[in-house]
Amino acid sequence: MVPHLITALNSPINELEARILESMPAIERWFRLEWMEHTPPFYTSVDVRNAGFKLAPVDTNLFPNAFNNLTPEMLPLAVQAAMAAIEKICPEAKNLLLVPEKNNRSSFYLMNVQRLMRIFNQAGLNVRLGALDEDITAPTRLALPDGAELVLEPLKRTRGRLGLKDFDPCTILLNTDLASGVPPVLEHLHEQYLLPPLHAGWTARRKSNHFKSYEEVAKKFAKLLGMDPWLINPMVGHCGEVDVNDPAGLDCVRGHVEALLTKIRRKHKEYGINEKPFVVVKADQGRGMGIMTVRDVKELDDASFGARCRQGVPPGQPKVTEVIVQEGVPTYERVNDAVAEPVVYMIDRYVVGGFYRVHAERGIDETLSGPGTSYVPLAFAESHHLPRPGEKPGASAPNRFYMYGVIGRLAMLAASYELEATDPDAEVYD
Amino acid sequence: MVPHLITALNSPINELEARILESMPAIERWFRLEWMEHTPPFYTSVDVRNAGFKLAPVDTNLFPNAFNNLTPEMLPLAVQAAMAAIEKICPEAKNLLLVPEKNNRSSFYLMNVQRLMRIFNQAGLNVRLGALDEDITAPTRLALPDGAELVLEPLKRTRGRLGLKDFDPCTILLNTDLASGVPPVLEHLHEQYLLPPLHAGWTARRKSNHFKSYEEVAKKFAKLLGMDPWLINPMVGHCGEVDVNDPAGLDCVRGHVEALLTKIRRKHKEYGINEKPFVVVKADQGRGMGIMTVRDVKELDDASFGARCRQGVPPGQPKVTEVIVQEGVPTYERVNDAVAEPVVYMIDRYVVGGFYRVHAERGIDETLSGPGTSYVPLAFAESHHLPRPGEKPGASAPNRFYMYGVIGRLAMLAASYELEATDPDAEVYD
Repeated sequence: MVPHLITALNSPINELEARILESMPAIERWFRLEWMEHTPPFYTSVDVRNAGFKLAPVDTNLFPNAFNNLTPEMLPLAVQAAMAAIEKICPEAKNLLLVPEKNNRSSFYLMNVQRLMRIFNQAGLNVRLGALDEDITAPTRLALPDGAELVLEPLKRTRGRLGLKDFDPCTILLNTDLASGVPPVLEHLHEQYLLPPLHAGWTARRKSNHFKSYEEVAKKFAKLLGMDPWLINPMVGHCGEVDVNDPAGLDCVRGHVEALLTKIRRKHKEYGINEKPFVVVKADQGRGMGIMTVRDVKELDDASFGARCRQGVPPGQPKVTEVIVQEGVPTYERVNDAVAEPVVYMIDRYVVGGFYRVHAERGIDETLSGPGTSYVPLAFAESHHLPRPGEKPGASAPNRFYMYGVIGRLAMLAASYELEATDPDAEVYD
Repeated sequence: MVPHLITALNSPINELEARILESMPAIERWFRLEWMEHTPPFYTSVDVRNAGFKLAPVDTNLFPNAFNNLTPEMLPLAVQAAMAAIEKICPEAKNLLLVPEKNNRSSFYLMNVQRLMRIFNQAGLNVRLGALDEDITAPTRLALPDGAELVLEPLKRTRGRLGLKDFDPCTILLNTDLASGVPPVLEHLHEQYLLPPLHAGWTARRKSNHFKSYEEVAKKFAKLLGMDPWLINPMVGHCGEVDVNDPAGLDCVRGHVEALLTKIRRKHKEYGINEKPFVVVKADQGRGMGIMTVRDVKELDDASFGARCRQGVPPGQPKVTEVIVQEGVPTYERVNDAVAEPVVYMIDRYVVGGFYRVHAERGIDETLSGPGTSYVPLAFAESHHLPRPGEKPGASAPNRFYMYGVIGRLAMLAASYELEATDPDAEVYD
């Protein structure tokens, strides 16, 4: 299925697409040089929003959990990328221990786990599943919709290593974002590769750090292409601890909302964009509060705002959270009549596929994911990341996907900067 | 298009296929470890023959010239593999100089060149074509069947470097096998990467060296899988210089033919194979004489044999050549009624695609390629190298292609051993 792109054909993003296409060899070389200095995350998925006048990543997931949405045609690419990744990390590896999300028995998620097992098996590893779930005390079979099954096994921790019964892996691959904390069983594993590292989990990670790194990456990239970084960079403000019960506690948020709306208005004027600016207020950590769209600072005085801020904070815990305020990027991609948001999947430094997150009931300025959100995945066409030079900007799905792949890789590179900057084991040379 | 495989479903090769599939992670790991010690050729294509009872490479080409036969679906894999290759060799490279075959204006060949340019362009390089042809003294446009065009430019040699006007490449990629000698313009390029190296060209290369290395690789691999290496290794005898004008000059060939036919007969008996053994006599170098199928040593006394040996030796040159005698591997693959031979394409250490060389008018024991031979390429299905465990051996095209990819990679690994052993610049530690 190739989605029908309804982004206006003459929107400014088509100029960006044309520039990205004509700069392709320079862009690929630039990434190559960046990867000489920085290590890409093991795997990454990036939600991208195309506003027609602006194209930006809005979420960078270091524990991608929808590999099942990629088409079978993309699997060879994923396997090849996995081979390259393993070769760098642990070339002698025989065994890979995959640790999926705790207590997630959704059949979609289990198919993602099955797909990951297949990718790494075909890349040359024996793959088994280790459960963080306390109730898994013996190998447990889980049925899949296609008739196959997964076997979850209890983890077996020895002094410095983690494994399963008769299974000692070289590498442990986490497919859980650790939003509810780091289980002790995963700590101090200095003899094995734990990927992604613990500080990539939402216990430690902060969106503000990511978008700070992304801004740096976007500026470098914009310099290479001779363009305004704003075209690919969502502006962000960051508040430390906010007490959402205290009306004065929101002062910092209010300040950022006001400042950002003004900046966006100025940018819209500069580019002749006839859009009502909006910002998005979200928790700096992965979870902890709902995501809110704000068009006017007065909305913050609304009683429901505080209530929505408190939503998601576990009962009994202080209603205090870190908050970021981010420039809202509407999505003007449509698949038929539904609002669509492209998601780019990467393994190591390679784009291996992607899909559209499509939601018929959401608006262009709302999040299309999050708990309780359903969506229809629409896989990118096969040769998604091979541009076709010479085709009219905005008219070619492969060219559009190539551009999304570039933006996805910029966000991945930002994650690489971010993980370096936040590495608790990094040696500091001051 | 997925070819209809008519190899008998219960032939011994299906046992090999089953064993290769069940050993997949071990096989992939084994290759990973080999590539830690050995450098794969830059690109390789391997002709494979499936006799049902035996599966073996019969030709390993280090200057593959039919990339145009791969399906567009395979391009992303080729681009990703090219990225990995460049990253290792010359990560800072901006420019790649591609040197195609001299005087080859066949539209099939030009489409191969176009495809190669596209692959390396999308991997992040500016690619231009440098001509070995003496008559190219200014940029020359060559029309392609799809309406596009190629520009051949005169080479520009400075003291230590080769380039074009205003084009200084980091890497020079040869797509010519140098069968008619090494042009002086390519010699002593110590400041740039010349790939494949000159000693990979047919001026220096010998099939006997390649198959000696292949035998070593096949033995190692067979040990890993606990099987008889003969199942994947064509036996070879080698004669030094043979004077094809002198009846006594063929004594060495006669001896090898007789010895090989006896060995093959013994193997056929061991496996209960009801086939008439044959051997193939060919020049040790890439060209120089025709390829002959011999079923009985008496055929060598036939006057036409000497004549066929002399065929291809340039007039005026001594009718002396080096010869190998190789166990004949019939091909029992069929596409409809035509004899078919799979060809596996690789870039760096990755299988990127393949096709069937199909020839309706040739026999199962004849070569399907060579000058003057026409063939129909039949591209492998998209997910050619991703096996599907659990499917019946011999019944699944992806599983069959995976097995071909393994054999292709064994031959590529042999080429890597061969190039190391024959490297004139290698340091010798004795």
